Amino acid sequence: MQHDKILLAHGGGGILTRELIETIIVPAFGTDPRGLPDAAPVPGTADIMLTTDSFVVKPLFFPGGDIGSLSIHGTVNDLAVSGAKPLAIALSLIIEEGLEVETLRRVVTSAARAARECGVAVVTGDTKVVARREADGLFITTAGVGIRRITTDPRTITPGDAVILSGPIAEHGIAVMSKREGIDFKTQFESDSASVWPLVESLIESGAAVRVMRDPTRGGLAAALMELAADGNITVQLREDAIPIEEGVAAACEMLGLDPLTVANEGKLVVFVSKRDAERTVAVLRTIATGQRAAIIGSVVPAGPVPVTIETRFGSVRAVDMPYGEELPRIC
Amino acid sequence: MQHDKILLAHGGGGILTRELIETIIVPAFGTDPRGLPDAAPVPGTADIMLTTDSFVVKPLFFPGGDIGSLSIHGTVNDLAVSGAKPLAIALSLIIEEGLEVETLRRVVTSAARAARECGVAVVTGDTKVVARREADGLFITTAGVGIRRITTDPRTITPGDAVILSGPIAEHGIAVMSKREGIDFKTQFESDSASVWPLVESLIESGAAVRVMRDPTRGGLAAALMELAADGNITVQLREDAIPIEEGVAAACEMLGLDPLTVANEGKLVVFVSKRDAERTVAVLRTIATGQRAAIIGSVVPAGPVPVTIETRFGSVRAVDMPYGEELPRIC
Repeated sequence: MQHDKILLAHGGGGILTRELIETIIVPAFGTDPRGLPDAAPVPGTADIMLTTDSFVVKPLFFPGGDIGSLSIHGTVNDLAVSGAKPLAIALSLIIEEGLEVETLRRVVTSAARAARECGVAVVTGDTKVVARREADGLFITTAGVGIRRITTDPRTITPGDAVILSGPIAEHGIAVMSKREGIDFKTQFESDSASVWPLVESLIESGAAVRVMRDPTRGGLAAALMELAADGNITVQLREDAIPIEEGVAAACEMLGLDPLTVANEGKLVVFVSKRDAERTVAVLRTIATGQRAAIIGSVVPAGPVPVTIETRFGSVRAVDMPYGEELPRIC
Repeated sequence: MQHDKILLAHGGGGILTRELIETIIVPAFGTDPRGLPDAAPVPGTADIMLTTDSFVVKPLFFPGGDIGSLSIHGTVNDLAVSGAKPLAIALSLIIEEGLEVETLRRVVTSAARAARECGVAVVTGDTKVVARREADGLFITTAGVGIRRITTDPRTITPGDAVILSGPIAEHGIAVMSKREGIDFKTQFESDSASVWPLVESLIESGAAVRVMRDPTRGGLAAALMELAADGNITVQLREDAIPIEEGVAAACEMLGLDPLTVANEGKLVVFVSKRDAERTVAVLRTIATGQRAAIIGSVVPAGPVPVTIETRFGSVRAVDMPYGEELPRIC
């Protein structure tokens, strides 16, 4: 570890998060050196997958969602991108003393609605309370169990594969950020917080040769692709003009000095598929409401000196950088 | 709800915790009016059980354990008392900026050791960081998946059944409390933090007619028995002189003005069995290291005006009160 104390940036989903996991967490639990996967098979079962995420998003309510619905979507999505159909969720609350009971009621009602919409049952939970200034309002940790429908593995990524994205990027991060900072953009940005399971299910049913899937959350599309490039030992070539993004979101990112590739999404799917299945995969995703703007955003080439490159609108090619981690604290 | 803001006591495992769950959590998730169980079956699977708990214990390290080992034992135990063999754990960290990396390393190393000792795999996790004074050092949420070996149900509790406890009470609560408050008792009290799965497994293998099991954690033996009495619609009659407790722990409780029946345990098992199997069950538990002081502590009678009564050493009978919730904050 470069640092002897934890920094906010260790939670940002970038370089420092990866360092923390690789030097402290993974050696302790003695698992795969690539780190603990977002969702993992449960030993002793045939096809059961388990995942967990803590949510510390600030503020608790933002356009397009709240910590309750986000905690359901995030966990459903970790299962979905592992190829598992989400079945059940456990939900644990850490509450700061003094939180309005009405706020808590709104959050759990929203979580319950999101769970119903996702077709998952919240079957168990826990509630802890700490004193004022020992937490910040409310933290939620969800764990999810699903049943594996397909197996994916970044090591099956092959040069020539297509990289497909289900829709426009950076919407969650900008929605939370503008609400938190009270920035008054002309547009009201909405989080894309949603389940990606309908997208994944349509892909599975299409029979396309899916190599691997990810939901590019904290750290954005950049972090997700950097990790897959490392795990698959390949290089990803992106084309900037192919990556869907709302004009207003792009402008907001520019104003805030953020690279939209590093800004969090909470309802998007990245899929690596064989070149042969690329067009068909886009067509399948576009039949789903949340995938109408699906597009091929790049392709896989043999591992080069840089894991992810992007061809800009102006025709130049640059390396995509892994976010360091401090750009957007408490975004999920 | 009696209050419009959350109080520390809402997290104490007593009356206020139950009120919070029954009026806010359960109506939202539309499940069993008795509340969300500690571990619940996963719909769509044959025998998979899911549980979760958040740990906010203060201090992070205490005699007999730390937040890492406790987070494993607590989740293993919720599965075990539901009759499920623990298989896998997901572990999520919420870290306050500024935490020493070395502290984190000690905690996750301890969690990993506890998991190995319990025979469960930590298969996935998450890490979030919040700013100073937005958390208190470190919170851990664990979720566990197990496979059901037997079905238990408080509604099968029958008058005449025996109530059996696996060993002395109140040790976790007193160990944490004396460390936190810097109270210098003559004895160094140690938490009983441990897996109860070996006890449960021995019971299952004995074939005894187990009605229901609980691990009496937050809220102590009193809260566990009050809940079972309500859920089973029966009354429990305890005998004070039959309840194992270390002399020093009893003295410490008296000094601190605590009823040991309401003080948390983290490695004890309460079992309701048919009267016929009572002696044999005690004998079976005593073959396990953590069950050497197992004893029949009471019996079940038809529901009376008071859910749990205790016959004191002096021969008088009093009602056992449900703890209100504020006795011991952040005990687990």
